[in-house]
Amino acid sequence: MSEMKMPGIYVGPQSAPALVEAVIGAGATIVELTEADAIVWKGPVEEFPAELPASVRWVQLPLAGVEQWLSSGVIAAHPDVVWTSAAGAYSHSVAEHALLLLLAGVRLLPRQTAATSWDHSHFTWRVGTLRGSTVAIVGCGGIGRALIPMLAAVGAKTIAVTRSGSPVPGAERTYATDELDEVWGQADHVVLGAPATSHTQHLVGAPELAKLKSTAWIVNIARGGLIDTGALVEALRTNSIGGAALDVTDPEPLPDGHPLWTLPNAIITPHVANPDVLAASELAVHVSRNVINFIANKPLLAPIDPQLGY
Amino acid sequence: MSEMKMPGIYVGPQSAPALVEAVIGAGATIVELTEADAIVWKGPVEEFPAELPASVRWVQLPLAGVEQWLSSGVIAAHPDVVWTSAAGAYSHSVAEHALLLLLAGVRLLPRQTAATSWDHSHFTWRVGTLRGSTVAIVGCGGIGRALIPMLAAVGAKTIAVTRSGSPVPGAERTYATDELDEVWGQADHVVLGAPATSHTQHLVGAPELAKLKSTAWIVNIARGGLIDTGALVEALRTNSIGGAALDVTDPEPLPDGHPLWTLPNAIITPHVANPDVLAASELAVHVSRNVINFIANKPLLAPIDPQLGY
Repeated sequence: MSEMKMPGIYVGPQSAPALVEAVIGAGATIVELTEADAIVWKGPVEEFPAELPASVRWVQLPLAGVEQWLSSGVIAAHPDVVWTSAAGAYSHSVAEHALLLLLAGVRLLPRQTAATSWDHSHFTWRVGTLRGSTVAIVGCGGIGRALIPMLAAVGAKTIAVTRSGSPVPGAERTYATDELDEVWGQADHVVLGAPATSHTQHLVGAPELAKLKSTAWIVNIARGGLIDTGALVEALRTNSIGGAALDVTDPEPLPDGHPLWTLPNAIITPHVANPDVLAASELAVHVSRNVINFIANKPLLAPIDPQLGY
Repeated sequence: MSEMKMPGIYVGPQSAPALVEAVIGAGATIVELTEADAIVWKGPVEEFPAELPASVRWVQLPLAGVEQWLSSGVIAAHPDVVWTSAAGAYSHSVAEHALLLLLAGVRLLPRQTAATSWDHSHFTWRVGTLRGSTVAIVGCGGIGRALIPMLAAVGAKTIAVTRSGSPVPGAERTYATDELDEVWGQADHVVLGAPATSHTQHLVGAPELAKLKSTAWIVNIARGGLIDTGALVEALRTNSIGGAALDVTDPEPLPDGHPLWTLPNAIITPHVANPDVLAASELAVHVSRNVINFIANKPLLAPIDPQLGY
């Protein structure tokens, strides 16, 4: 076995025992920031140091969505460093939540659980199924790829939409973003998985909602700004779509008294698709994989591309 | 092609155009009861004729659970006729509902959808996942077999329990009913799929609930009588299990004011796992398959065994 110096990695500034364990388990050494070859950052963007030691070659962020890190200029200030996000680390949990939200919508679960009286004759004519339906996953990255086999297991087909349009495994067909107009009318339901960028702001507005089927549910587990909330409320009020199930909202947190809290065809969960209780262990697995790649000089998972915005 | 007389099948007494279409599509002829070789019964047990024409060799019932047909003596009164149920016909929809109920329980969906205020900090430490969990399907027939690949897609393993204990495809391990005591403590969650018979009444009572993990959800999409409701309410009140998600109850319909309506760890849906809106087309597919088998002299799907009680 050839002798090699193991890289030193700073983990902080917040205490993160699962990440420390992941770094050590992957074969690296924990060091102070001043001696670090890489940083596994666990803390807010505001606390990130303005100056980095020259030895730092890689920074791992703890989030899947890094728009604040890009807009704040922190990433741009350190162009010689490789930045990676946690995109993909939380895909399974978020996909599981998306499946739950879509099933709950189609089967009218929240209206049933809100009842305090047995009303079989009402619901037995209104509960639907995902079997045989076609679900469009708009922004089909790690979460979408994790969701496709779950949808297949309940008998639903997937149409994927990605930036490039390169075929996504398991999808019936993949469209490029600029072909998106063809997708809305074909889909029985829509799941939004796109990152928040200037190109995806209000990706779903009044014109897109108008193209959806009147029975379509739209699920958003990505970022609230992908949907024009005003247009969505109007579509829900007029029942022009089946419903919306949102784990992310715009504004977020959704203020008390907002119409989305009480519309019968809206389902709100408070940004828990990737809950903190699961995230620590999922992030640790992701960090472990990336430290192993870093030591082996292999490409890192989830590199951030400032041009693309994620 | 050899000449053969197509069997005549009576469909009724209620109007059932989808079943008539299924029978004709499968190659048989629609006839009056007096001339029938077989009966596709669409109606209540009380209206079934006391005497059958001697020509009748097969009766297809419209239900998956036939305990009323057995207890009323109607089936026993015609021992020379082959009786088939609709067991399996609705398996997909019921399995999809079971998946939804289990996910909704583990991820606390009803408590989130009941909220009218954003409470991320509460739920982000309480939302769980099915990934990595072990689900016991007690009574693993058609519904259980449809559920196993759905659970696998979200990363959960299955332990099956069947009468015989013969290995169920896709299950980690299959136990026979008389080994059931070994199962409760191993399972992270339990789905009940057993038929209602004298052997399965109160299959889950206080002793069984006491063996479940304190985080375990129990899902019942089969028959209410499988669970001792009083013991369940006590387990839910003391949080000795995670929760219960019930599409069937005992008594059923669940009366107004029953504690299960308001316990925060109980989820009630009013027997809609197999909703009427989907059932007609699913039953038609089942009937079509059985008519094809009947014409070809092949074994029929879902034969009823009065000894077994289903």
